[in-house]
Amino acid sequence: MKKVGSQTFKPQNPPYLISTGVVAGPFEGRGILNEYLDHVYDDLNAGQSSYEAAEKHMMLNASLICLNKARKTPEEVDLFLAGDLLNQTITSGFTALELAVPYLGIYGACATSAQGMGLGALILDGGYASLIQTATSSHYGSAERQYRYPTEYGYQRRPTAQWTVTGAGSALLAVEGKGPRITLITLGKVWDLGIKDPFNLGTAMAPAACQTLIQHFADTGRGPRDYDLILTGDLGKIGGALLVQLVEKEGGFNLRENYNDCGMMIYDREKQDVHGGASGCASSALVVFGYIYRLLKEGRVKKVLLVATGALHSPTSFQQGENIPAIAHGVSIEA
Amino acid sequence: MKKVGSQTFKPQNPPYLISTGVVAGPFEGRGILNEYLDHVYDDLNAGQSSYEAAEKHMMLNASLICLNKARKTPEEVDLFLAGDLLNQTITSGFTALELAVPYLGIYGACATSAQGMGLGALILDGGYASLIQTATSSHYGSAERQYRYPTEYGYQRRPTAQWTVTGAGSALLAVEGKGPRITLITLGKVWDLGIKDPFNLGTAMAPAACQTLIQHFADTGRGPRDYDLILTGDLGKIGGALLVQLVEKEGGFNLRENYNDCGMMIYDREKQDVHGGASGCASSALVVFGYIYRLLKEGRVKKVLLVATGALHSPTSFQQGENIPAIAHGVSIEA
Repeated sequence: MKKVGSQTFKPQNPPYLISTGVVAGPFEGRGILNEYLDHVYDDLNAGQSSYEAAEKHMMLNASLICLNKARKTPEEVDLFLAGDLLNQTITSGFTALELAVPYLGIYGACATSAQGMGLGALILDGGYASLIQTATSSHYGSAERQYRYPTEYGYQRRPTAQWTVTGAGSALLAVEGKGPRITLITLGKVWDLGIKDPFNLGTAMAPAACQTLIQHFADTGRGPRDYDLILTGDLGKIGGALLVQLVEKEGGFNLRENYNDCGMMIYDREKQDVHGGASGCASSALVVFGYIYRLLKEGRVKKVLLVATGALHSPTSFQQGENIPAIAHGVSIEA
Repeated sequence: MKKVGSQTFKPQNPPYLISTGVVAGPFEGRGILNEYLDHVYDDLNAGQSSYEAAEKHMMLNASLICLNKARKTPEEVDLFLAGDLLNQTITSGFTALELAVPYLGIYGACATSAQGMGLGALILDGGYASLIQTATSSHYGSAERQYRYPTEYGYQRRPTAQWTVTGAGSALLAVEGKGPRITLITLGKVWDLGIKDPFNLGTAMAPAACQTLIQHFADTGRGPRDYDLILTGDLGKIGGALLVQLVEKEGGFNLRENYNDCGMMIYDREKQDVHGGASGCASSALVVFGYIYRLLKEGRVKKVLLVATGALHSPTSFQQGENIPAIAHGVSIEA
């Protein structure tokens, strides 16, 4: 069996990440990732009538850019795996409608980038497809009004609050081609630290990232030094610092040398005050499909472990007093 | 490649459906499926403080019953694939928390039963797991207040409206064992007929079911007569009748002999007036994991094609004037 240890899956022929596409909103365009974005929108609405329509436009655009770069058409794609934060993952469903490709909706909240790559790699290596596209997105406006308050309300953000990234990312995985390869996939369990505060999601998600990281090391015999870079998706400042402590305490691993969180790699901390950092499905998608993909292709890093994290609550579960459970999926991407 | 035609996937060693578990609410217990249910709850709340908590209790219970029947523990499960209708699929996430099993959230609305079985079969046959559990659920109370109106409002239902099934179903798929096998999986594209009425979902979903059915026949060289029974998930009375016409017109296939819709197989039409029929993720889950599974195990039917359908809208997309896109995934289950 192509399973290593209890939660890690190892493709026999690691699929290639042959192309990516990333688009983002105006605020993200003024951040430090600018030069790695394929398109930056001038306004949050992206010329559409609503934030939700804008988000769909972004996911579709990222997906088409990704296809164009690889000189592929939607007709050549065997399967589209996508997910997002909106209720009933409408962004993904409406994008799949436009692409007219066989579609499986996935939901891992902000862990969707890793979930899509990981699941895509399993299906490709299983011999079921030759080309799989994955996509994910988030939008500050649509997420704020769904999860918290409409942006027009102008509530004061707490120091732990994170800023939902506006943007979308897509990647094409293929059995053959050029590009970095997906070598290992560690699928996470759901964890609950007892956190109830939706303005402190980094803390709620850190234990899930910790468990997936430690399990990845246990399953593979690898350690932090086997990677040039270990990334989490959107733990932000507070969750990221907590993770470093947890991993040291629970597993004895030192993350202080080569760890970073995608949520700290998007905005310009000097000029853009986003409090706890960035969050949302697009956080890891922009960083990994944009910046890291470029680094891997140029050989500036060789082995990257992405552990994308997702908070699995809803506004309803929060209002009913439930804790915020979280999950993290790990994907090793190697040049 | 283990792909047949453009949308159908064929496992080399078709995985076994070694066990199922189904639980339902009181109204469903008074329907015609009663003797095939593992547990019927006395009230909609299932002893919990909210409809949402009740739905989670039901999915967890169905999953545990399913495991018990196969004398398996959650520790033996490689992967849990689950999805539901609630925002951010909280039922599935909270159930995965209790089971403490590696988890991938999926979203296909009411097509989730087929999506879970199909995806599970691909991962198993790909050599990545030996035991995969899938689950789905829906709940009349939680779905009504999320998608339409709170039940306390007492609005008058239209003739086309369908009744959301309260219940949950789970299935265990294994590389080795006894039971019916998943032989073919046809993954659907998203379709949009231009329907905007959330009280007429059967009509919105019929074209997706039609496309998946015709593609399944084209990909495999099979026709309706190759199956003892062809089932859709929850097209109901109106959508089902439309499907029969569409499939005849678009593909020249006659479904009049061995076709039924799960939404017409749950309630007692003499005594339970549910207008257009049943709907919800639990519609196909109760019928297929309960009734059909028994028929297959007893050899009373040998080849069944389930085409489960899902409407991919959200209340937000509806309010913003968008059409209701739909998807359908097909799974051939053979004794």
